[in-house]
Parts: sequence; C-alpha cells; structure tokens
Amino acid sequence: MKNLVGACMFGQSGGPTSVINASAAGVFIEALKQPNITAVYGAANGIKGILDENFYDMGAEDMKELELLKYTPSSALGSVRYKLKDASVDDTDYKRILEVFKKYNIRYFFYNGGNDSMDTCNKISKYLISAGYECNIIGVPKTIDNDLYGTDHCPGYGSAAKYIATTLMELNLDAKVYDKGQVAVVELMGRHAGWLTAAAALANHKGLGADLIYLPEIPFSIDKFMADVKRVMDANNGKCIACVSEGIQDKDGNFIVETLSAAKAKDGFGHTQLGGLAIQLANLVNETYGVKTRGVELSLMQRCGAHLASKTDVEEAYMAGQTAVKAACDGETDKMVVFERDMSSGSYQCKFKLMPVELAANTENKVPLEWIIDDGTMLSDEFVKYALPLIQGDCKAPLEDGLPRFAQLKKVQAGRK
Amino acid sequence: MKNLVGACMFGQSGGPTSVINASAAGVFIEALKQPNITAVYGAANGIKGILDENFYDMGAEDMKELELLKYTPSSALGSVRYKLKDASVDDTDYKRILEVFKKYNIRYFFYNGGNDSMDTCNKISKYLISAGYECNIIGVPKTIDNDLYGTDHCPGYGSAAKYIATTLMELNLDAKVYDKGQVAVVELMGRHAGWLTAAAALANHKGLGADLIYLPEIPFSIDKFMADVKRVMDANNGKCIACVSEGIQDKDGNFIVETLSAAKAKDGFGHTQLGGLAIQLANLVNETYGVKTRGVELSLMQRCGAHLASKTDVEEAYMAGQTAVKAACDGETDKMVVFERDMSSGSYQCKFKLMPVELAANTENKVPLEWIIDDGTMLSDEFVKYALPLIQGDCKAPLEDGLPRFAQLKKVQAGRK
Repeated sequence: MKNLVGACMFGQSGGPTSVINASAAGVFIEALKQPNITAVYGAANGIKGILDENFYDMGAEDMKELELLKYTPSSALGSVRYKLKDASVDDTDYKRILEVFKKYNIRYFFYNGGNDSMDTCNKISKYLISAGYECNIIGVPKTIDNDLYGTDHCPGYGSAAKYIATTLMELNLDAKVYDKGQVAVVELMGRHAGWLTAAAALANHKGLGADLIYLPEIPFSIDKFMADVKRVMDANNGKCIACVSEGIQDKDGNFIVETLSAAKAKDGFGHTQLGGLAIQLANLVNETYGVKTRGVELSLMQRCGAHLASKTDVEEAYMAGQTAVKAACDGETDKMVVFERDMSSGSYQCKFKLMPVELAANTENKVPLEWIIDDGTMLSDEFVKYALPLIQGDCKAPLEDGLPRFAQLKKVQAGRK
Repeated sequence: MKNLVGACMFGQSGGPTSVINASAAGVFIEALKQPNITAVYGAANGIKGILDENFYDMGAEDMKELELLKYTPSSALGSVRYKLKDASVDDTDYKRILEVFKKYNIRYFFYNGGNDSMDTCNKISKYLISAGYECNIIGVPKTIDNDLYGTDHCPGYGSAAKYIATTLMELNLDAKVYDKGQVAVVELMGRHAGWLTAAAALANHKGLGADLIYLPEIPFSIDKFMADVKRVMDANNGKCIACVSEGIQDKDGNFIVETLSAAKAKDGFGHTQLGGLAIQLANLVNETYGVKTRGVELSLMQRCGAHLASKTDVEEAYMAGQTAVKAACDGETDKMVVFERDMSSGSYQCKFKLMPVELAANTENKVPLEWIIDDGTMLSDEFVKYALPLIQGDCKAPLEDGLPRFAQLKKVQAGRK
C-alpha cells in the first residue's frame, strides 16, 4: 500500500541476541526520517505490549542512545514468547490488535524475531488484510540459531558464531596447558539446527578448535562418542576437546541429555534437573576413562556477548531494520527481509531482499548434511567458507570506566495503559 | 649477586590467566637485551621442564611472536602443579635442579605463578643459596584469585574482573528481558578469596549488575540465601541475579556445593558429581518458588578470556616480567615483584617493588570484611574504588579472519632431554 500516512509500531520477540537492538536502531532511525510516519512506537515485550497498550515513544529518545542500541545486547524493549492462536479458532487477540492499531493510527508494523515471531507477524498481516485495515507489515529476521528459511543467514548468528569461535580458541589454549590428559566437553546452543555448534569449526580453521563436533542434524550415539573421545585421547597425549549441541538426539529422537538424566534417575535421583549435557558427558568420560574432565556450557553468554559482536553482523542487522522501513514506505507489505549472498565481485557482499512472510513462519533451515564430515564429528571447508564472512570485524559499545556504555532509553510511555 | 654472567630460565606455573604470557613477554624481551644473559630458556610445564631438561630457546623465536604473547591467554610454555617436598625431607628434586642449572650455566631464574608457585620459587632459592650456587632468582606474581600477600593486586586479576563485570552486564540485560520472573545464579571462581566474585559489583556500578553477591569470606547459609532471593524477587517483579563464589562455605567450613550434593546423594545418587554450585542453587530456587531459573558458570572462560583483557593489567603484567629481569641483572635475588598503588598524583599509578619471596609463599590475601556490606550480600564503594583502575582500557590480539591471532612459538628444544 503506497503513501500510507500514520504511526509505526516495532516489536522484539523471542530469545535475545547481541544485535537485535541493532535492527531496532535501524528501524527507529529510518522511521524517524520518513515523512509519512507520524510517530514511532516501540512495544514493550513484543506483541504483549500491543495487546496491553504498553509502548514507548521512540521519538522522545536521544539520537545518541538510539545509536548506542547498535552495540547493546538483548532486547532493549523487552521480549516475549507468545503464540497467537489461529484467528479461525479464537480471534480475540486479533480484534484487540486491530483496535489498538486503529486507536493509534498504526499503519506500519515491524516485527523482529525468529520462526515463531514470523508466524505471529504473518498471522497479524493476514488478519489485517482480511479485515481491510491498511497497514504495511514487514518482518525483520533475527535468530542466533540461523535456522530461518529463505535467507542466506540470520542477523545474530555471525556475532554468536564469533563469540563461540573466539572463546573456543581461548578454551583450547587453556584446556591443553598441563602435561596431563584432560577432556573438555563444551555445550553450545541449538535444539534442532547445529549452526552454532558448527561455529566451533571456525576455531579449528585457526588451529585452536575442537577435536570433535556433534550437531543435532546427525543421530548421536553415546557409545560412538565414547569411542571417538578415546581415539582422540590416545592420539593426543590424553587430551580432547569435544563440542556438542544441546539438542543432540539418538536415532530414535530422544534427547541425549534426557537419556543421561534418566539413567541417573534410576538410582533414585527422581526428577530433579541434573547438570547440563556437557557436565553429564564429561562425568561419563571421567567415570569411564579416569581422566580429568571439564564440562563447559557457553550458556546465555553466547547469545548476549555483544563485546565480541561481528561488525558485519551489526551492520547487516541495522540495515535489515532500515530496509524494512524503506520497503514499507515504498508500499511493500506482508514480507520479511532476507539476505542474499553476492560473491560476484569475488568477495562477500550481502544484498537485502524481500520474501513473503508466510514462507519464514515455523520453518527450520538446518546445516546441510554434506557439510558434516568425518563420520559426523567435523565440519567441512564449505562450512568455514560459508560462515567466515559473517564474523568479520569488531564492533562494540564505547568504554566508560573500562566497561561498555550500553544504550539507556527513557522509555516515555506512549500507550495509555 | 652483581654481574653474574650466564643463562636465564623462565617457567610458568599454576592455573592459566589472560596475561601470564604478557609477563613471559616482559621477561623474554628484556632478558634478550641484557648483556650478562647469555641464553634465554623457557621451561616446558614449569618446574617439571627443568627436572626433565625440557626447555626451549626463546632467542630463536621471532620478536613479532614474543610481542603477540602479550595478547595470548593461557600459559604458552605449558604449566604445572607440582609441589616440591621440603629439602630437609627429600632433596632429590633440588639436587636435580642444581645439576641442570650447572649444566646450562643458569644464573638467572624467574618463576611466574601464585602462592604455591612462589613456595616453589622460594624453596629453590633457599636451596641454591645453601648449596652456594650463585643464581639470581625473582618471582613474578600471577593469579586471577588476587590473593597474594604483599602486593596491592596481582597480574591476571584485572582482566578476569573485567571479563566478569562485562559479562555480568550482558547477562543482566539478557536475564531481565521477559516480563516474567526469572532467577539467575552465576558462579564465579575463587575457593578461598572472593575477589573474582566481588568483581560483579563493578557491573552494579554501571547499573547492570547482581542483586546479591556472596563471597567465601562470609559464612553462607542456604536458608538466608533463599530468603534473600525471595526478598529481591518480591521487590523486582520476580527477577533476581545472584552471584556466588565457588568456594562459599557454611559456618562450619563445609563447602555449600558439597552440602547440596550430599543432600541429593541421600536419594541414592551416589558419588557421581552433580552439576556445579550455580545449577544446584538455581534448582533449589526453582523447586521452592516455582520460578524459572538459570544456573550459569563462567567456568574457564573467566581466566582465559583474553579478548576482554584489561590494558592496565596487560601492561602491568608485562612490566612485572621486565622488572624481574632488570632487578636480577642489578644483583637482586630471593625476591618477588610486588605492585604498590600510588594515588599521590590524584589518579591511579602502579609502582613496582621487590619483597622477600618467602613472604608470598602459601599466603592468602582475602577481601577485607569491612568491604562486604548489606548483611553479606554486596560490596561497598571502597571495593569499586579499589578495583576499577585495574580494568581500564582494551588490549587484545590483532584479528586475522575475524578471529584473534595468538602467538605461535617455534619452541626450539634447548634442553637435551
């Protein structure tokens, strides 16, 4: 819809990343420039903020703070995990959204998130179309998991991959420092897609990575894992570093972390949560081979470690937000911004395009099986070639007292909650 | 002993840090300049490399790589945990060390480490004096634990503190992103001294720290912890971030992690190692209050995260090594380098001095009790004033392919093992 005049609403959804706020900065700074956009709102906790009429006037923020959003991890407006029911089943939420959009004359809507969030974005888009309410809606991709369909890669992945590869290089130097055997098991995020765990192979590219890398794309066998570790230990003076995805499953689809916990539970441990996968696999190696072990989980740090953000990722995330606003103001709607890799100049360049948003909803893009080599324990050079351009350059918040100066928003209430 | 002419030996000992190699660079680069030093050796795995005649010719390394050591975490020569017996009980090792020192005409010995390593350094020094072998020996301090006696602070602490404070700021933004309650328990290193855990308070100084901080200096009560968490949750929309030192103990000196494990073991879990302290405390909060919890352990990353090294720390670590060599060449021996804080100019400056090495052996310098406030849950401004100068500035390895380019040593064998 061309030449729509009205307010714009932006929301953040799903798990935080190092660069989701860079996309927010791109949306806000571009939207504040657009003559047809009469007000720029940021929803508190995504779709929930819209339903609750709880959102902020982004025009009231200092431009310096909006710029600092580029280097500020997590979701500055607050995030949410909220799944909209199908409108055909229950249209309460949709009616409420339409009511709020009408009340504030919201004619531009940008939603930033992963698969589930694009499902939300798509449902709202389709409902408003069916209701005849004119509103240009563009999804802005985001997920450290890198599993969105239709885009070469996702904003957030490059920074998480850089964090993982850098940290693994440091852990490699640390774990191999004594002249005795030691096995380190490092657990990385990714329930279904192994992109994050695969990033460990970038450290291998620098000679300081993992000996074994296990992705959820390949069924995991505890017996094979134990044999793999033994083989590496025997060849390396008792030393081995293994990276595992939190989502590894056996051939029947059972999560390995649950299998290990269940084995312990038989001893009367009940339902209490045990240590994570890394600790349990490390314990198993220790019990079986008597070697010193360490279970290390990169936990939340891998998704919020903005001090190690990739400049490429930050810039692309910003441009994804900016592209969404420009496209909407050009009349586009019901789309998501996607990235296309352009190697025509001989070096990596990223092009921004649009794709129907329903294609991104609830899909999962996994690591190609042909990139997983060495009997399911390593990534090929093709993966390294794919991922290396995404982790280039440094880009972080300025220091104040030796610590990052993150954005500080005023969050002036604009909804009348 | 002035004007000694001969080779120098350097060894690294104890747990790795982000800057122990910066001290190595200081020793090597300075020693290679000294006319009285005829060869510069680096011992593989500390004292063990001397006993095994396994050491490298540092003069054969490229200067560029020695400079890169400043930014390379962990112990580049390999480390060791090896406690020398008292010479009066068993002098086998000492005789062997004397034999090796004589064989290679080693007249300068520098040993880099914490309390235990200074014990080693002291014992060797005293033995060689009693044996009438002329060798100038200087200890170079190192420990992320910051618990060495006689020095204002220790090389390695500033970088670990900067890593902890920065990461905690990021975790704070991540953990508070949803509009639901969530309790995060973050476990930090430090068995006996709470300096590392206290560093969380630097993040508080920026408004993004922990609600509760528990050091091993104060007896820990699980009941009080649970009440503290409840109080913070009630005041903060169900949200709480608590930092705990791995070494927290109850009033009878029992480690809390063991108490919690023992409680579980009663259910038949046996002796298998459970998750760490953070996970167990998080589980307890989850079971008791039904709130979503996260146990996060900064694990090895806090000691090897050189990408977040403090420039102040790197420079001081380098100068500690350089000072040791200069002092030894000036005839000093049987000493350790210590840091003195000089605020006479109104801002922080570090002076390098010498102290008898036996004073540093096996001592522990803890966080002053008067700096621990709010009923044992927070650090005072005095702590922040103390620690803030130590985390200033950035200083890290140059990037190559978006990842750190760490030192790559040739390690030309100089011993005749």
